Amino acid sequence: MNESTFLTALRSLPLHAGARGLADDTALLGDLVLTKDLLVEGIHFLATDPAADVAWKLVAVNLSDLAAKGAVPIGILLGYPLAGDDAWDRGFLAGLREGCEAFACPILGGDTVTANGARTLSLTAIGRATAPPARSGARPGDALWVTGTIGDAAAGLAIAIGGQGPPELLAAYRRPQPRLAEGQALAPHASAMMDVSDGLLIDAARMAQASGCAVTIDLAPIPLSPAYAAHAGTHREARIAAATGGDDYELLFALPPDATSPVQATRVGSFAQGAGLSLTDAGEAVTLPPRIGYQHG
Amino acid sequence: MNESTFLTALRSLPLHAGARGLADDTALLGDLVLTKDLLVEGIHFLATDPAADVAWKLVAVNLSDLAAKGAVPIGILLGYPLAGDDAWDRGFLAGLREGCEAFACPILGGDTVTANGARTLSLTAIGRATAPPARSGARPGDALWVTGTIGDAAAGLAIAIGGQGPPELLAAYRRPQPRLAEGQALAPHASAMMDVSDGLLIDAARMAQASGCAVTIDLAPIPLSPAYAAHAGTHREARIAAATGGDDYELLFALPPDATSPVQATRVGSFAQGAGLSLTDAGEAVTLPPRIGYQHG
Repeated sequence: MNESTFLTALRSLPLHAGARGLADDTALLGDLVLTKDLLVEGIHFLATDPAADVAWKLVAVNLSDLAAKGAVPIGILLGYPLAGDDAWDRGFLAGLREGCEAFACPILGGDTVTANGARTLSLTAIGRATAPPARSGARPGDALWVTGTIGDAAAGLAIAIGGQGPPELLAAYRRPQPRLAEGQALAPHASAMMDVSDGLLIDAARMAQASGCAVTIDLAPIPLSPAYAAHAGTHREARIAAATGGDDYELLFALPPDATSPVQATRVGSFAQGAGLSLTDAGEAVTLPPRIGYQHG
Repeated sequence: MNESTFLTALRSLPLHAGARGLADDTALLGDLVLTKDLLVEGIHFLATDPAADVAWKLVAVNLSDLAAKGAVPIGILLGYPLAGDDAWDRGFLAGLREGCEAFACPILGGDTVTANGARTLSLTAIGRATAPPARSGARPGDALWVTGTIGDAAAGLAIAIGGQGPPELLAAYRRPQPRLAEGQALAPHASAMMDVSDGLLIDAARMAQASGCAVTIDLAPIPLSPAYAAHAGTHREARIAAATGGDDYELLFALPPDATSPVQATRVGSFAQGAGLSLTDAGEAVTLPPRIGYQHG
């Protein structure tokens, strides 16, 4: 099965009301927000990535889900595979400490196991939120916004694999920054919010599908960093690469059409009645690329 | 690093008060109890174990940690690796449904990833408890008790690997039963409680260490099932094998010396001032076996 068919099957099992039909990245339990994201060696990170960066990323990608609910982190539970490599374990613990300290998110517990082959790292993060926006709340007419810049991490992955490029892009891949403060500021205003983990296009399509809307994204305003622009260019192909690369961990959110974002962000599209994802470039219709983002399984 | 050295290092990181120094299997957050247990293919289960049994076991071992706190399950978050094997996925989902229904524990959320080699399955279980006993509360003079029978699962593992033996023992290995009702009845009375996952001896030693006590276990009263007794015998070696085998998921608990257990259970030892684990057989001192249970890493 792939991710989508597995989730469809999983939805036929007994679900907690707080799972909201498994249509979101997080579960709600009273004012608690819970999320669980795994990183698999060779899939989400490279065996050659420094262990401290992998630990940081494990914390960051989970807290990014909390950020999308406007949550304040409470703590994390770690699932850690011991693979008989003391230096890796020490590096991991150092990066984990950095992540816990940077995001004021202490350790609650977890489990250590003996690894069998490639590492699978698991984290559960718990936060508290007063008004968590759903992924499914976008309405026809809403504008689609995104924080920060898009595409840096995907370009950084190409550098990590052995390509040439500036250290800022490599850092964007290895040390993503969960937008916790932005999420807390946005939560009371956003009609829908999620983080961009698999690619701007695929994640926007998921928000539209969950919301029962169509979404159109314009390539022209997609925010590119100076480092990305200098490295990959700003032409249409570079923008499509940025919008389908994934690992951005920026916040993607819907606001009423005439609202402005309370945090630094860029308007990249809009929702309409209907279904599906459309692409334009400065208003001109553009054919969707064959791959609009990352899908598991 | 092994589990013990990794945990020692982890304790130097920022810890939530609810982690209670990582000296327990669960974390506490208000009246919520949280646990996270992983199962690794080739370590905790066999590639040849039926997928439905693996799913059941994943649920059961996590709920067993909740049982040890006297908690009522609320829900679970699943971390699932997609390995391109539809039949396995379907079997897993069927077993997961059985576990969710049997223990009235719905799905809250989770994450699916692409597997890379051996499967690592991860679950986070959340429950609610009013008076969760700690692992560390045993006092000198307390008696040590255990529910159910010990050794069946370890004998069942030998059968799963290809040995001969009765189906009850194989079922004990593949379909452990978390003692939720017993845990809820015991929680108000037990001065300490935990589940037996790595072996009666090693887990009793851990309870004693966490409590700052010594513990003595007598082999003679260790409860053996009729199937185990018929299969492996009841002599001293068979009792040592049962007490060091692990995977029992029975509840191990401390009660004041003159208390009787409010649920069916067997008194197998006692705590005293001091430190360490001692073994007797009908009162006669017995040398500890070189391996007292399972340790990761």
